Amino acid sequence: MPTTDPMHVHSMHTHTCGELRLEDIGREVTLTGWVWHRRDHGGLIFVDLRDRDGVTQVSFDPEHSGGTAFHVAETIRSEWPVKVTGVVRERPEGQDNEKLATGRVEVLISDIEVLGGARTPAFQIEDRIDAAEDVRLRYRYLDLRRPKMMGNLRLRSDFTFAMRQALHDRAFMEVETPALFKSTPEGARDFLVPSRTQPGHFYALPQSPQLLKQLLMVGGVERYYQVAKCFRDEDLRADRQPEFTQVDIEMSFVSQDDVMGALEEVLASAFASMGVRMELPLRRISYWDAMDSYGTDKPDTRYDMRLHDVTSIFGSSRFKLFASAAANPDLFVKAINAKGAGAWPRAQIDKLADVASGFGAKGLAYIAFREDGSVTSPIVKFFSDDEMAALRAEMDVEPGDLVMFAVEGRLAADEILGGMRAHMAQALNVPREGHDFLWVVDFPLFHWDEDRKAYAAEHQPFTQPVEDDVERLDTDPLSVGSHTYDFVMDGFEAGGGGMRIHDADLQMRVLEKLGFTRERAQEQFGFLMEALEFGAPPMGGFALGLDRVCMLLAGADSIREVMAFPKTSSGSDLMSAAPSEVSGKQLKEVSLRLL
Amino acid sequence: MPTTDPMHVHSMHTHTCGELRLEDIGREVTLTGWVWHRRDHGGLIFVDLRDRDGVTQVSFDPEHSGGTAFHVAETIRSEWPVKVTGVVRERPEGQDNEKLATGRVEVLISDIEVLGGARTPAFQIEDRIDAAEDVRLRYRYLDLRRPKMMGNLRLRSDFTFAMRQALHDRAFMEVETPALFKSTPEGARDFLVPSRTQPGHFYALPQSPQLLKQLLMVGGVERYYQVAKCFRDEDLRADRQPEFTQVDIEMSFVSQDDVMGALEEVLASAFASMGVRMELPLRRISYWDAMDSYGTDKPDTRYDMRLHDVTSIFGSSRFKLFASAAANPDLFVKAINAKGAGAWPRAQIDKLADVASGFGAKGLAYIAFREDGSVTSPIVKFFSDDEMAALRAEMDVEPGDLVMFAVEGRLAADEILGGMRAHMAQALNVPREGHDFLWVVDFPLFHWDEDRKAYAAEHQPFTQPVEDDVERLDTDPLSVGSHTYDFVMDGFEAGGGGMRIHDADLQMRVLEKLGFTRERAQEQFGFLMEALEFGAPPMGGFALGLDRVCMLLAGADSIREVMAFPKTSSGSDLMSAAPSEVSGKQLKEVSLRLL
Repeated sequence: MPTTDPMHVHSMHTHTCGELRLEDIGREVTLTGWVWHRRDHGGLIFVDLRDRDGVTQVSFDPEHSGGTAFHVAETIRSEWPVKVTGVVRERPEGQDNEKLATGRVEVLISDIEVLGGARTPAFQIEDRIDAAEDVRLRYRYLDLRRPKMMGNLRLRSDFTFAMRQALHDRAFMEVETPALFKSTPEGARDFLVPSRTQPGHFYALPQSPQLLKQLLMVGGVERYYQVAKCFRDEDLRADRQPEFTQVDIEMSFVSQDDVMGALEEVLASAFASMGVRMELPLRRISYWDAMDSYGTDKPDTRYDMRLHDVTSIFGSSRFKLFASAAANPDLFVKAINAKGAGAWPRAQIDKLADVASGFGAKGLAYIAFREDGSVTSPIVKFFSDDEMAALRAEMDVEPGDLVMFAVEGRLAADEILGGMRAHMAQALNVPREGHDFLWVVDFPLFHWDEDRKAYAAEHQPFTQPVEDDVERLDTDPLSVGSHTYDFVMDGFEAGGGGMRIHDADLQMRVLEKLGFTRERAQEQFGFLMEALEFGAPPMGGFALGLDRVCMLLAGADSIREVMAFPKTSSGSDLMSAAPSEVSGKQLKEVSLRLL
Repeated sequence: MPTTDPMHVHSMHTHTCGELRLEDIGREVTLTGWVWHRRDHGGLIFVDLRDRDGVTQVSFDPEHSGGTAFHVAETIRSEWPVKVTGVVRERPEGQDNEKLATGRVEVLISDIEVLGGARTPAFQIEDRIDAAEDVRLRYRYLDLRRPKMMGNLRLRSDFTFAMRQALHDRAFMEVETPALFKSTPEGARDFLVPSRTQPGHFYALPQSPQLLKQLLMVGGVERYYQVAKCFRDEDLRADRQPEFTQVDIEMSFVSQDDVMGALEEVLASAFASMGVRMELPLRRISYWDAMDSYGTDKPDTRYDMRLHDVTSIFGSSRFKLFASAAANPDLFVKAINAKGAGAWPRAQIDKLADVASGFGAKGLAYIAFREDGSVTSPIVKFFSDDEMAALRAEMDVEPGDLVMFAVEGRLAADEILGGMRAHMAQALNVPREGHDFLWVVDFPLFHWDEDRKAYAAEHQPFTQPVEDDVERLDTDPLSVGSHTYDFVMDGFEAGGGGMRIHDADLQMRVLEKLGFTRERAQEQFGFLMEALEFGAPPMGGFALGLDRVCMLLAGADSIREVMAFPKTSSGSDLMSAAPSEVSGKQLKEVSLRLL
C-alpha cells in the first residue's frame, strides 16, 4: 500500500479511498473523491468513491444518513467530487468485493458535501475503455483518473525518486543545465527559440545535456546527475515524442569499469525499490556478439532463438545462392529456428517473406520440419543429406521447427534475422517472464552512413576510442572500437553511455573523421575543445531513457502511457491545441515573418 | 563533512582531497584532483591538490618519491589533473594549516600520473578574484572550480534533494509537464518555438506549469510537485534570467490552511537539512498590514524601522502640504525613523531625495535629530511644539535619528518609504542576522494597472476570491480579497501561492474583469474552463523560487552565483555564444524568414 499517514494530514479527508479494512470497523471517517459508480437499490444508495489511492463503497440509507445526506445522494452523478463522513462497517454477508483492497467494508454515510458538479464525462472512467486515443488525449485530465493511468504516473514518480535517491546517496550532485542553449544541428534537428533581444539569433532546446555535463566534469563536479528534458525535432514515427526525459549521469576520475559499476548499483537500487530484482554484475555482451547471436544490439535474451552462421555447411552445396555466399568472404548464410512455427500452414509461412522484406530481405528461404517427419521448403530439394544432417545438428532441429535463412553481408543478415527473431517471438507468444537486463558493450566508434556517404558516430561524436585502436583512425576507421555500453532492458535500448574524449586534439581528429571541416568543428564545438585544453579529467557517463524504462515497468505498450501530457504523432497537444498561431505582434517582436 | 564512503567506490581515488586527518597517518592513499598551488622549495616540491571536496597538501622529495615521481612533479603546472599515490604523514611542526580541514597532514607521494595538461587558466582559481563576470562566464568551467562556486552548486543540489524528499515523504507525486505548450501571452512575454510539421504554428515555453498542474488536480493527482524550468522573455534587468526554476506544488481536497500547513512542514524539513531552523507555525502578516508597516509586501522583519501613519498629527498644521493631506481621505503622511542617520552631514542627507525619487517621490521631507539636541530640517520650522512632541512620541525619537516623510496616496507613500527603509538598512548596515521567514497573506484579487487602464490580477488570473467578496466582483473589484500567501525570506519574495478557482463560471467572470472578451478568454483558457466543468476539486498550491532561495542560503548577491550556466543580462551564454545565427535551411524548415 503506497498510502501512508502523511496523506491524512493537511487534507479534508481522514483516510484515502484505498485503505479502510476490517480493523477500521466502527471508526468515523471522512473521505473525499469522485463518484465513480452509483447504484440506487430502492431505498438504499451505494456509491463507489474513487481517489488516486483506491475505491471505497459508501452507502446511504434514509434512516442512518438523515434526510439531507440521503437526498443529496439521490442527486449526485458520475464524476462529481464529494466529501463524505460516516462510520465504517462490515459489508453484509455475500457482498464482499475481493477485487478491491477495501472490499470487505463500506462506510455508512451521515454527511455529504458536494464539492463541485460535473458534466457527463467524454468517456467512461474505466481501465478497459475503447475510446480512441485522441479523445483520451483531448480530455487527458479524465483519462488520468483511470486507475491504470494514475498507477502509471505514480510508478514514474516513485522510480524517478528512487533513481535520485540512489544517485544522491552516492555523492552525485544534481546540476541543472540550461534549456536555452546553442544550436548544434549535427545529429537530429534542433527545436529553435528565436531571441527577441538579439534579432536573427536563435537558441536551441538541448537534444541532451551532453556538452554541458562534459563541461561540468572539466569544472570539477566529479559526479553529476540530472533528470533532464531533451528535445528532438524528428518526424514522430512510432513511439517518439518531441520532448522526452533522460536520467543524465556523468563521472570523472574514473575508468569504464568504475562508471559501469556505479551505474549497476544505482540501477539495481532503483529497480529494487520497484520490487524488481537485478542480479549484479549484469551480463555484458559485446556489440559484435549481440549482432552475431541475436541480430540486434538490443537483444531480448529472455528467449533463445539465436542466429547461427551456417555458411560453412554449404561450401559445396548444389544450392547456388548458398554456395556462392560461402565462396564470398563478405557474404554469410545465417539461420534461426522458430520452434513451433514449423507446424504452421504453408500459406502462413509464405507470408513471412513480407515480414522479412520489412527488415530488408529480398525473399525468405525456409525449411518447415513437420510433426510427421516431412519437410516443407522451396529449397530443401537442393540440399545433400550431409548438408541436411549438419543443418539439423547445428540448428538443433526437432519436429515442428521452422528454420529461416538470410544470405547477405554480415550486418544485413543480422538485421533481417534479428527482426524475424523478434517477430516470431511475438507471433509464437514465446514466454518472456520478468525483466531482462544486460550491457551491450564495445560498439565500433563509427559506422558507414550509406545515405550521406560518410562515417557517422555509432554512439556520438564525443566517445573515447579504444586507446590501442587510435592509430587506425585514418587507415581503417571502421575497425576502431570505443568505450561504450548500452543498457538493454527487455529488448529495448533503455540507456546508453560511454567514456568521453578528454583531449582536444583527439576530439578534433574524430570530428574531422566525421566529415567536419576544422572551421565548422570550431564553430559548433570550439567551446568544448577549448574547455578540454584547461585540464580535463578522464570522464564517462550515461543516460537512462526514463520514459521507456517506466513504460517497461508499467507493462505499457507506449511511452505515452507513462507521460502525463504526451503529444500526438503530429506533435500536437490536443487539450490546449498547441502548437497554435501567434499574433503578428509576437512574431514581429522576434524579428520573424512567416514564409 | 559531506564526503561519505560512496565517493571512494568506483573511482580512481581512495579518498577525496577533503577528508584526510591525523588518524589516517601511515595509510597509503590515492588522490585525484587538480594542481592548485605548487611550491618548489629547492629539493622539495609541495602541491595543494584540489577536488570538489577540499584541498590536501601532497609533497614530493627526491628520496621518497623516487626519481620518476619527483621529476614529473617538477613538470606539472597549475590546473593539471593528476592522480597521486603516497603515504599520509603528519605535517612538520609549525606547518599546520588551520584553514584547511586536512591541514594537519600531508601525503608523501611515491607515484604520480598526469591525467591531462592544461593551458594557463584565464584567471586564478581562487575564491577572491577580481576577474570581470563576463570572463568568469566565458570560462564558466574554470569559475566552477573555485571552492565557493562548487559549494554553491552543492548547496543547491542538497536543498533541491531535501525539498523532493520532504514532498515525497508526504505523498506528493512528481509529475513532469511539457515544456512545449500553448502560447498564452497574457502575463510576461512567451518564448516561442516554431513547429516544423505545422507551418505557421508555434509552441511556447511555459512561464510556469500553472494551468497544467490545475489540470492534474482535475485529473486526480491530489498532491503534485515538480522542480520545473520556467521561461519568461522579459528584459533582463537586475537579477532576472530568461529561464529559472521553481519548486512547483499543488494539492486538492484542501483548505488554504491545509496547504499552508503542508508547505510549512515541507519547507521546515528542507531548511532543517541545510542547518536552518524554521519556527512553526510561521508568522502571517496580511498584505495590507505589511504594506502599512513595512511599505512592501515582502518585508525583511529582522529589523524594525516601521512605517508610521502620522497624518492625524498634522490635521491643523501650518505646514500646508501635511495639513492638506490630512484633510484629504485619499492622502497620507507617513514616516520612518532611520536611527543613526540623524548624525549624517546635511549634504549626505539631502542626497537621499535622489534615492527617494527612484521610488516615485517628488521630494523628501525629513528631520535630522542631532546628537547635540538641535534639528536639521527644511520643514520643521512650520511645526508647532505640540506637533513636534506628538511626532517624537509616535516615532520614538532619540538623538541621532532621521525621520523621513512621504505624503502620497496609501500605496504610493508605502512604496516610497518601503524603498527608503530597505535603502537605509543597507546604508546603515543594520544588523540582519540569521534568516527571516514569514507569510504575507490575503492579497487583494486585483490592482488597478494605470498603464493599461485596466484591472490586473495581483497574483494571477486563476486565484480564488474570498467567497464573501465575490458579490462585489462587479461593484467594487478592488475590495475583493483572495486566498493567497507569499513566502517571504530575508526580504525577498521566495515563493507564492494561492487557492484556485475550481468553478468554470467564476473563472470566466474573473477573466472578463481582467479585460478579456469571452471569445479571447475561450481561445486562451477555454481548455482550462472546460476541464473545470468535469468535476474539479477544491485546490491550491505554491511555487518556490529555487534560484532565489539558494542564493539566500548561500549568502550570495545574485542568482547567477547559484546557477551552473547563467546567461548575461542580454540573455547570452558567453561560453557557447548562444543565441547564434542558424542556417537558412533551419529557418526554411520551420517556414520562417528574418525580418
